[in-house]
Amino acid sequence: MPDPRLSALPTPCLLLDEAKMTRNIGRLAAHAAGLGVALRPHLKTAKSPEVARRLLTRGDGPATVSTLAEAEAFAGAGVRDILYAVGIAPAKLDRVLALRKGGCDLSVILDSAAQAKAVAEASRRAGHPIPALIEIDSDGHRGGLSPDDPALIEVGRLLAGGAELRGVMTHAGESYGVSGRDAHAAFAERERAAVVAAAAALRAAGLPCPVVSVGSTPTAHAARDLSGVTEMRAGVYVFFDLVMAGIGACTTDDIALSVLTTVIGHQAARGWVLIDAGWMALSRDRGTAAQAVDQGYGLVCDETGAILPGLVVAQANQEHGIIAVRPGSGAALPDVPLGTRLRILPNHACATGAQHGVYHVIPTAAGAPLMEWPRFGGW
Amino acid sequence: MPDPRLSALPTPCLLLDEAKMTRNIGRLAAHAAGLGVALRPHLKTAKSPEVARRLLTRGDGPATVSTLAEAEAFAGAGVRDILYAVGIAPAKLDRVLALRKGGCDLSVILDSAAQAKAVAEASRRAGHPIPALIEIDSDGHRGGLSPDDPALIEVGRLLAGGAELRGVMTHAGESYGVSGRDAHAAFAERERAAVVAAAAALRAAGLPCPVVSVGSTPTAHAARDLSGVTEMRAGVYVFFDLVMAGIGACTTDDIALSVLTTVIGHQAARGWVLIDAGWMALSRDRGTAAQAVDQGYGLVCDETGAILPGLVVAQANQEHGIIAVRPGSGAALPDVPLGTRLRILPNHACATGAQHGVYHVIPTAAGAPLMEWPRFGGW
Repeated sequence: MPDPRLSALPTPCLLLDEAKMTRNIGRLAAHAAGLGVALRPHLKTAKSPEVARRLLTRGDGPATVSTLAEAEAFAGAGVRDILYAVGIAPAKLDRVLALRKGGCDLSVILDSAAQAKAVAEASRRAGHPIPALIEIDSDGHRGGLSPDDPALIEVGRLLAGGAELRGVMTHAGESYGVSGRDAHAAFAERERAAVVAAAAALRAAGLPCPVVSVGSTPTAHAARDLSGVTEMRAGVYVFFDLVMAGIGACTTDDIALSVLTTVIGHQAARGWVLIDAGWMALSRDRGTAAQAVDQGYGLVCDETGAILPGLVVAQANQEHGIIAVRPGSGAALPDVPLGTRLRILPNHACATGAQHGVYHVIPTAAGAPLMEWPRFGGW
Repeated sequence: MPDPRLSALPTPCLLLDEAKMTRNIGRLAAHAAGLGVALRPHLKTAKSPEVARRLLTRGDGPATVSTLAEAEAFAGAGVRDILYAVGIAPAKLDRVLALRKGGCDLSVILDSAAQAKAVAEASRRAGHPIPALIEIDSDGHRGGLSPDDPALIEVGRLLAGGAELRGVMTHAGESYGVSGRDAHAAFAERERAAVVAAAAALRAAGLPCPVVSVGSTPTAHAARDLSGVTEMRAGVYVFFDLVMAGIGACTTDDIALSVLTTVIGHQAARGWVLIDAGWMALSRDRGTAAQAVDQGYGLVCDETGAILPGLVVAQANQEHGIIAVRPGSGAALPDVPLGTRLRILPNHACATGAQHGVYHVIPTAAGAPLMEWPRFGGW
């Protein structure tokens, strides 16, 4: 039965199911508490002060961000404890210092002597020690030092001599490429082992290491023992998406984000339904392409959010999506006349969210009016 | 030699080379004039009134858009003749009428009797005939009626009986999948033949067809004869990109858009240079993946825009790009220390541009200060 609140929305637009989001938030918060670690949610997925307020344990932190624009926006919204979790470039330290002097405990990450020297030098010049975590590589995914790399101690000493060596952190990005709780738990243990070893090496060298930080959405949910770890980070779990469902980190029923779209045409001979959500609304992310089940540019639901079996957004142009039956599914194309409203579940919540300026929030309270929560972007 | 104007910019950010843009604009304008057709540039690539002012032949039109938000923004900036070139949904007709009543000659496209009835009915109700073009399918790419489909005449009659039948249009999106001027010219002829046949069928049925519109960037540049056509459309040519270079519609030297980025780390053992431009800054578009040369997430240039041979952005996370040597190129990873600034040429200008809120414009006049031209998004 059509929801009159949704009928009034122009399409395409971004829908957020508050009840699912709240459930996702509560699940990981309980798991972190059970493991005895703090949870430092990553706000890069949401980019919304309204979501952050509901996501952060204390309301004002701790939080993780991926850009200084996020740090500035969330600090402006009252978040007081932020980790900027992308390797610091020296030219960005002035903005880091400005945020810190404004009262936000912003910390940075790095994995080289060149960065540590720049952070220590900027700290000395400002008379204000900038806290930094050393990034540890636990899976060959991206940046970071191996726990047994002698550069670890060198970087630690450079930081301690002018900045603040706050600890170590890692992110097992490769956990996105494996499926199932046991595989994710194995990556969680790799994260734990790497940072605990790095912390031990720093301490053995007489250096401080108060923070020992791990995390990714798959490993955070699957971790069974985080001995020696002080906090975990995760981001996309607040909304979840088809990539996470494809590796068993959630079910499709957990996905809180979708794109509302309208049927704008048909090519019956080709088995196509055209919609007004193309890649501009869905993003170009094809994160499920390499998974066991390729979900195209997204799974198709009716306006209420119930999945229409066997359909995917098979192609996307800038403002056109093409819905087709998934080959081999045996499904029939449903009767969706011109003007029918559908919802598309996204491959990747971070990427799809970023294409939109506002969340249209379906509130938990039945029948309550929709809310509009702005999103921001930029750097 | 570093450009002090660029050194002051925070990274990642979007750069636009005004001189290259001006050359691209002039080249297609001259070609259209030579063919004796009007040029109706597509503004979906630029989404900027400043670019539109330089792109539109008369300054106030004619123009093409892909969303009503574009139509509203450009009408607000003084554009008076706009084609909304995505199949119309009935629920959007109120916004179409509001724009028309505000003095903008906005026309819509459609390819079904259901849409034609909705447009005619809305026109009658408003006492204001909405002009519509019938979309013709010239290559099986997406929407549109075949020129010999009997529905063409039915749709034309439905429009003429309440709305305004303004003409026919087509877009050979499949031309993006073939390489070289001859192949593009063949698609241009398919576009021409399809709309000229459709116009003839409508006229033979006693219906008007003043506008006969074709276009895509590859076909617009390659067309040799547009007899019977009144206008052509193209969009991405204003900036060009690696997808267009890959099919020979331009050279890499024509690409006016790039992303300025900073080196934030190295993984020497893996041959990686990490930069602060990930998919959030570059987009997830991998349009060259299926081409003869896969350009990864983009080609790497020094800060002045000179291509560094043999390098690509091989991987992209949200705020990290990973530069590596292209396999088989024999190139060596250059010495790019922490803090080095580079430029990345995009796969797809429409997608990369959409990730940014502003163009930092390098003016044609040597040494003149950079300009900032805002971009908009949304629907």
